[in-house]
Amino acid sequence: MRIANRNGHITGGGSDGWEIYYRTRDMQAAGERVLTLTIGEHDIRTDRAILDAMHASAVAGNTGYAFGPGKPELREAIAARVQARTGVPTSWRNVVVTPGGQSAMFSTHMVLLDAGDVGLHCDPFYATYPGTIRATGAEARRVPTTSDQSFLPQEADILARADGARTLMINTPNNPTGVVYDRATLEGIGRAAVAADLWLISDEVYDTQVWQGEHISPRALPGMAERTIVLGSMSKSHAMTGSRLGWVVAPEPVAEAITTLATNTTYGVPAYIQDAALFALNLGPDFERQIAEPFRRRREIAMRALAGSNAIRVIPSSGAMYLMLDIRATGMSGNAFANALLDAEKIAVMPGESFGDASAGHLRLALTIGDELIEEALTRLAAFADSRMP
Amino acid sequence: MRIANRNGHITGGGSDGWEIYYRTRDMQAAGERVLTLTIGEHDIRTDRAILDAMHASAVAGNTGYAFGPGKPELREAIAARVQARTGVPTSWRNVVVTPGGQSAMFSTHMVLLDAGDVGLHCDPFYATYPGTIRATGAEARRVPTTSDQSFLPQEADILARADGARTLMINTPNNPTGVVYDRATLEGIGRAAVAADLWLISDEVYDTQVWQGEHISPRALPGMAERTIVLGSMSKSHAMTGSRLGWVVAPEPVAEAITTLATNTTYGVPAYIQDAALFALNLGPDFERQIAEPFRRRREIAMRALAGSNAIRVIPSSGAMYLMLDIRATGMSGNAFANALLDAEKIAVMPGESFGDASAGHLRLALTIGDELIEEALTRLAAFADSRMP
Repeated sequence: MRIANRNGHITGGGSDGWEIYYRTRDMQAAGERVLTLTIGEHDIRTDRAILDAMHASAVAGNTGYAFGPGKPELREAIAARVQARTGVPTSWRNVVVTPGGQSAMFSTHMVLLDAGDVGLHCDPFYATYPGTIRATGAEARRVPTTSDQSFLPQEADILARADGARTLMINTPNNPTGVVYDRATLEGIGRAAVAADLWLISDEVYDTQVWQGEHISPRALPGMAERTIVLGSMSKSHAMTGSRLGWVVAPEPVAEAITTLATNTTYGVPAYIQDAALFALNLGPDFERQIAEPFRRRREIAMRALAGSNAIRVIPSSGAMYLMLDIRATGMSGNAFANALLDAEKIAVMPGESFGDASAGHLRLALTIGDELIEEALTRLAAFADSRMP
Repeated sequence: MRIANRNGHITGGGSDGWEIYYRTRDMQAAGERVLTLTIGEHDIRTDRAILDAMHASAVAGNTGYAFGPGKPELREAIAARVQARTGVPTSWRNVVVTPGGQSAMFSTHMVLLDAGDVGLHCDPFYATYPGTIRATGAEARRVPTTSDQSFLPQEADILARADGARTLMINTPNNPTGVVYDRATLEGIGRAAVAADLWLISDEVYDTQVWQGEHISPRALPGMAERTIVLGSMSKSHAMTGSRLGWVVAPEPVAEAITTLATNTTYGVPAYIQDAALFALNLGPDFERQIAEPFRRRREIAMRALAGSNAIRVIPSSGAMYLMLDIRATGMSGNAFANALLDAEKIAVMPGESFGDASAGHLRLALTIGDELIEEALTRLAAFADSRMP
């Protein structure tokens, strides 16, 4: 029995880059202590008050179908939050609640791309970007960036690859680099999107994790709201990764198409999770700062620990829970370095090659372990890197 | 800005059949009492013990990512349940947990159909069937059935429409008809699937609601396990519609493809919901019977109330929470009858036309209101029908 060709297209034949992850898991299962900086997930659990609000909603009877684009009050709250952060008038009609940010990303590409179209995304990229675009039947095409330019996508590079493309997905604050796109970069992206008539899909799930400067949504740039779709989520801002609550903010025709798609794919998001999300959003910016704070602190600890290294250049980052390290001075690939580091120091980091070609010779660190462990890991990582200098 | 052609393809230009539903909602919003038999959802909420188990899991820290095909212990429990009910050896490797039965249906078609392929489903059909197939880029093609044959799909009718088809989706016990497919029917379907080399997708979400005879899964027929995918869900069996917990039972290559697709579409199901589902499954068959019992009782009440009607022929049903009534003796269409009934009697039922061409001139009743209301509604409905006899 033959399955669809689609499946081979989704995986695209590339390495999934998870060798380090699986090796780490096996080592830990064997009882070894591994300092693990691979996974972009909080080291805290969802706040008890949010879980209690969820339970109260469920016990109150919100356990039936909640089909459609989401509960009106949650859509209102998301719209208000987006409007407050961007200044762009946003109605609940622009908002569709999805089972997680990944679903928001998939749904958006599904309604914007036909099979054979091209969807652009930047290199380096979050692991599921190409597979998500390919799952729609479209071609996933990379816009390369460079380490020297802090992996910021350039207008000319987008235009050079826009032939046949209908979408461009960007991510700021960025996973895997920790870079927050500045206004000039976003204006260049906007010009390219207009010139090539692209939908701009802006993944902003790290929008509460900005350590320097400000998060700018491209939807707030003049003339861009009509062609920009913003992907959001409670995962990173409220430490609710497992609750799978995301959203799309989009022009109304796109929001309506995503609602129709949802009816035929997911049939809505549990109402009690929507109520928990509404409760969490109403906790306000102080709560969001509290969730983000450990990553700000750890980033400073990490920067200090790496400051004396000759082998490591830290990509100038200002957001998200990641640091990207340029270790090309060692002459090693990211893969070789990450495996050697795991062997010698029992420290697990993701090789840059896992995130694309542009980040080869780099490492991604997720700052998702405690402060003291971060200091220990980064101090030893720096010494290890310096010992590998030719 | 143009959205994808896919969107028009999904809706397919047909009526969505929800006019009665929306009219009812408006009448109720205006304060009118409407006896509502339109929605296939329990009139009870999810059991408190299940919700408490969910909360306990969440509070214990199961709030992080739960990507992949589902928690091993839940996959084991689903596999054991399926094996116990069908006798077919079933491993956890055959099981993928999905965010609801609808997601199981979509994911299965996605991994089996490429754009341009044909996916077959029976007419009449549950509302999302064609849109789900079309969302994959495939053509949704109907296998007609007839009222006189209790809407049971016939081998020859499948074969006559199998050109270019790669899948056939069936549903037993059936929504909208309440019919439970007998062994001879399933054997005919199986022969057609083998002859036309079709994957058989068997939607069995009503498998605990069987009032006469037995539920037979086509996966249990000789030689069929290798080409059959079973779709299951906690929604109907455990009154957990809103929790969006479904599954696929499939040959391993299909299960693996669905897992890869999930990584790029939904990124897993909340772990605390998976734990609640495991708790609920462990409540055993007595609990499932308790959830199903009201529909058995109401079906008997309804049959008695309809027994004296000259205008109504009840399709011989033996399962699910539905009755289908043949009202062609009135000379009215299902649409005309349902609208007239809503106007005259404030009773809302779904016209058969909402579920396809084969059920034109019929009505679907969801037995999802209390016993006394069922008796009142069906008695008045029968009198109304008889008054409309030419």
